[in-house]
Amino acid sequence: MAILMDGKQTAEAIRLQIADEVVELKEKGKKIPHLAAILVGHDGASLTYVTHKVKDCEQVGFKSTLLRFDADITEDFLLDQIDKVNDNHDIDGLIVQLPLPEHISVEKVTSRILPQKDVDGFHPSNVGKMVKSQPTFISATPFGIVKLLEHYKIDTKGKHCVVIGRSDIVGTPMSILLSRKTYPGDCTVTLCHSRTPDIAAFTRSADIIVAALGIPEFLKGDMVKEGAVVIDVGITRVPDSSKKSGYSLTGDVKFDEVSPKCSYITPVPGGVGPMTRASLLLNTLLASKKIV
Amino acid sequence: MAILMDGKQTAEAIRLQIADEVVELKEKGKKIPHLAAILVGHDGASLTYVTHKVKDCEQVGFKSTLLRFDADITEDFLLDQIDKVNDNHDIDGLIVQLPLPEHISVEKVTSRILPQKDVDGFHPSNVGKMVKSQPTFISATPFGIVKLLEHYKIDTKGKHCVVIGRSDIVGTPMSILLSRKTYPGDCTVTLCHSRTPDIAAFTRSADIIVAALGIPEFLKGDMVKEGAVVIDVGITRVPDSSKKSGYSLTGDVKFDEVSPKCSYITPVPGGVGPMTRASLLLNTLLASKKIV
Repeated sequence: MAILMDGKQTAEAIRLQIADEVVELKEKGKKIPHLAAILVGHDGASLTYVTHKVKDCEQVGFKSTLLRFDADITEDFLLDQIDKVNDNHDIDGLIVQLPLPEHISVEKVTSRILPQKDVDGFHPSNVGKMVKSQPTFISATPFGIVKLLEHYKIDTKGKHCVVIGRSDIVGTPMSILLSRKTYPGDCTVTLCHSRTPDIAAFTRSADIIVAALGIPEFLKGDMVKEGAVVIDVGITRVPDSSKKSGYSLTGDVKFDEVSPKCSYITPVPGGVGPMTRASLLLNTLLASKKIV
Repeated sequence: MAILMDGKQTAEAIRLQIADEVVELKEKGKKIPHLAAILVGHDGASLTYVTHKVKDCEQVGFKSTLLRFDADITEDFLLDQIDKVNDNHDIDGLIVQLPLPEHISVEKVTSRILPQKDVDGFHPSNVGKMVKSQPTFISATPFGIVKLLEHYKIDTKGKHCVVIGRSDIVGTPMSILLSRKTYPGDCTVTLCHSRTPDIAAFTRSADIIVAALGIPEFLKGDMVKEGAVVIDVGITRVPDSSKKSGYSLTGDVKFDEVSPKCSYITPVPGGVGPMTRASLLLNTLLASKKIV
C-alpha cells in the first residue's frame, strides 16, 4: 500500500519554519520579507488565488501589498506599475496574477518584472538559470514538488521519470529539473504530451510519474507499474451532487486504482496544491535575502 | 539503406543564401552584419575554432572583429571589453570562445553579453526564451540539427526522440527544442545521460536518436531499431596511424553497424559539424536584423 505524500503537513512545516525565521528577523531589527501582488480585472478564481497568497504572507509574518486594477487598464499603464514596484526597495517579490486581459501581453509583463523580484520564476532569465542549474526562483508548483520529493527522501538518481504535460509552468520545468545533475534529480526523464500517441507505453515502465495534463483521472491503474512514485498535479472541479459545494476536486490520477500499486503517491487535494502555496513564500524569503 | 544527411552540402546552401542576402544589403546601402569574437589565451584548439568562425564571416561577406587577450587578464578587464562591444552599435553579435582561464567565471561572462548580441545563445535569458518558445538565438549545434531535420523534411510530430547527453550546449537544449509544439518538434523526448542505467533500453524504441555524449562509437547496431533517424553530434580525435594527421574524427555512433538500420543518418565528419558553423552565421544575420 502506498505511503501518502502529505503536502498539507509538509507545507505547514515549511510555513512554521518560515514564521520562526521572520520572528528572528524582527527581533534582530532586520527587514521583513515583502511580497507585492498585482491583480488585473475581477475574475473570481484569480481573486481567490491572490487572496490566498496575501493571507499566506500574513500568516508567516511577511508584509504584503495587493495592487488591484480594472480590466481596461492599458498595457503601458501596467508596465509602469511594474516599474514602480521594481524600484521600490521595500518590496522583495512581485507576482502578477494570470490570466491577464487579452489586450495585455503576458510575455511583456513577465519580462518586465526585475528577475531578482520575480518570485513566480516566469522571467526568461530565471527559466534559463534553472536550465543551467544556477541559483534562481523555480516556479511554485515545480518547486513544491521538488520539496515534497526531498521531504519524503524519494530516491531519484538513475530513475526513469515520466512527466505528462509540457506546460510552461509545470510539465516543462519539472522535466528539466528532474534531469539535472542534483538531488532531487539525475533522473532519465521522458516528457509526454498531447502529441504522444501512447502515453501508457511510457508510464508503464516509469519509476516516477508526474501527471500534469489537467485531465481528471487520466492515469489509470493499468498504466502504472508496481512500486512507482506518483505525483498528481491535476486539480479539476468535477460536478459532484454529494458535496455541498456541488463539485469535488479531482486529480489527473485515478487514485483508487493507482494508489494500491504505488510506493508513494500525492493525494488531491492536500498534495501538490499546498506545496505550491508554500513555495511562493520560500521564494519570497529567498528574494528578501538577495540569494537569487 | 540509410539516406545520408549531408551537413556539408546543407550548410553550403545556407551560406550561399546568406551571401546573396549580404550582396543585396550592400546594394541597398544597408548595414552589413558584423560579428565580434573574443579569444582569451593561446589554446590551439580555441584559436582554430575562432579562426574558422572569422573565416566563415568573411566568406559570406560579414564584417568580423577578433579581439585577442592574454590568459592573465582579469575578469573585470574582460567584462569591460564585453561592455564596450555591447555599446558598439556597429557590432551585431558577440561570442566569447570557451573555455576561459579558470580565474574567469563563465557564468558572469555569459550573462554580461547583451542578450540581443548573444549569437551563441548562452545567456540565461535566451535559454529561457527557447524554453518558452519565444524568438531567440538558439545555440549553434542544436540550431544546426534543427535546420538539418528541416532540410531533410524529417517527420518529428509524435515521434519518440531519445537524446543521449545533457550538456548545456547540446543535449539539454536539443531535448527541450524537440519537445516544443512546433516543427521540427512535437516529439516525446527522453533525455538520457551518465546516470541512466540502461541507455539501450531507451534507444531501442526510439524513432529519432541524438547522440551527444562524446564517447566514440557508443551507439552500436543492436541499440537502434529499423528505420530510426540518427543524429551523431560526437566528434572525437581517435589515434589512427593510417591517416597523415595521425588521427581520425570519430562520432558517437558506430556508423558501419548503425547506418544499415537507419532511414536517415548524419556522417562524421560532414554532418552536424558544418551545420554548427553555418548556424552562427544565421544567428548573426538574425541579430543584425534585430529580429531577436
